[in-house]
Amino acid sequence: MKIAIVGLGIIGGSYCKALKAHTKHTVIGINRTPQVAQKALKDGAIDMIGTPESLKDADITILCMYPQACVDFVRENGQYIRKGAIVSDAAGIKISICPQLKELSEQFGFIYVGSHPMAGKERNGYISSDENLFMGASFLITPCGAEQAAVNKLSQLALEIGFGSIKVTTPEEHDRMIAYTSQLPHVLACAYVLSPSCPNHKGFSAGSYRDVSRVANINSKLWAELFLENREPLMAELEELNRNITSLYQAIKDRDRQALTDLLEQGHQVKTMLGE
Amino acid sequence: MKIAIVGLGIIGGSYCKALKAHTKHTVIGINRTPQVAQKALKDGAIDMIGTPESLKDADITILCMYPQACVDFVRENGQYIRKGAIVSDAAGIKISICPQLKELSEQFGFIYVGSHPMAGKERNGYISSDENLFMGASFLITPCGAEQAAVNKLSQLALEIGFGSIKVTTPEEHDRMIAYTSQLPHVLACAYVLSPSCPNHKGFSAGSYRDVSRVANINSKLWAELFLENREPLMAELEELNRNITSLYQAIKDRDRQALTDLLEQGHQVKTMLGE
Repeated sequence: MKIAIVGLGIIGGSYCKALKAHTKHTVIGINRTPQVAQKALKDGAIDMIGTPESLKDADITILCMYPQACVDFVRENGQYIRKGAIVSDAAGIKISICPQLKELSEQFGFIYVGSHPMAGKERNGYISSDENLFMGASFLITPCGAEQAAVNKLSQLALEIGFGSIKVTTPEEHDRMIAYTSQLPHVLACAYVLSPSCPNHKGFSAGSYRDVSRVANINSKLWAELFLENREPLMAELEELNRNITSLYQAIKDRDRQALTDLLEQGHQVKTMLGE
Repeated sequence: MKIAIVGLGIIGGSYCKALKAHTKHTVIGINRTPQVAQKALKDGAIDMIGTPESLKDADITILCMYPQACVDFVRENGQYIRKGAIVSDAAGIKISICPQLKELSEQFGFIYVGSHPMAGKERNGYISSDENLFMGASFLITPCGAEQAAVNKLSQLALEIGFGSIKVTTPEEHDRMIAYTSQLPHVLACAYVLSPSCPNHKGFSAGSYRDVSRVANINSKLWAELFLENREPLMAELEELNRNITSLYQAIKDRDRQALTDLLEQGHQVKTMLGE
């Protein structure tokens, strides 16, 4: 197949490198900044540098830009996409973009299958891309009404490039769960490192500091967009977290050892039950 | 030297194993439950099983029990400790126990040097102990007025068994910093996994879920003691965290993209400045 990757940041770049490393497919790289596409070509991460017009050759196109930019790109260049080709995205939110891309797919005659690779790093850009970024990760698919054959084809491709599992879901379930599993830890990490104690942590810290603070090294523009486009589920999780932190705080404040031990034990039980 | 380790849990057991693996010192293991000491002897983690009376032979004794249990043990068995020997502990809080151990050191004629190995796992007990647990970790020392020669001797031993750096501090600074670097992430991890979304995370989660939730698999009794004995610094950090989470929440609620981006960018800057 010919696969077009649009946007060669960490995710798009990793798709290209993984496709070249683990499959025989031809990879077309499309990127706004020509220097990055040239670097990818030189690295052997893509077979050719494409333009929007090149989408006519692609069997599968994966949009790896900021969420709204994916929609804008298709609105502008949808006429180049081959009829019946598959178009997916890599956006971390789904409700705010899937219906728009679904509508555009009907307008332009391609098949839209939403997806979200559950992989990333606390660094950005093509420079951080990695052919093994997706190894063992979960590949989330929001079919949005696409035919099963298209879902299967995209799933197969995901498994070929290293994903460990496929989870088919709806935009609603996706956004609600991602608010918890991904967005909330990013909010927390930023809130955590804003303590005046943070700059003095060295020598006093170990794994728990490292882990909770890791993703604070955030792409602020991208994540602000993700948070605002998933505002209600994220606010609900922040409210839930606040209730639980407050319960723990209150037990500490009241010197209530039993209540405190019980709350911590609940946390322990959840992890034990999950086998973690 | 002869080194006595009192309490063969994950930390005490790791001290024994690290001493046997990386030094020529003789290791005396003292443990309340005889089966664990017998297992350690069988594993070659200790040279002999000791009793409190064995402390008369030890050049250095390291107390690896719950914080207040360390004080109680010395109060009860201090008469067996050789005059001029070094006694340290491994407790994660210092203000609440250092003055008591310092007083006991004067009463019984030993030299007390507080310490805290910045290493651990989200599992407990001798079964989780590991000869390489301390590799590259920071070893915190609270001399509490001990002579420099004793501090040096303990530092040297820490470096021999794999610690990567030594940080000399006061009980006050120790407890204030540990509230931030260690206790706060443990409170957060427990609060995080208490969300009703947690049990459904599989397939939707990746590194950020794993990292923030890791230490929720907590020893509830130990950590309740650590939190309550370090109540004020921990409450102060929880209040600071709450202010920062609230600022982020408010920006999301208000759809204030600029304020949200600025807050996230501050987090990014802190990590960048720290070279993380």
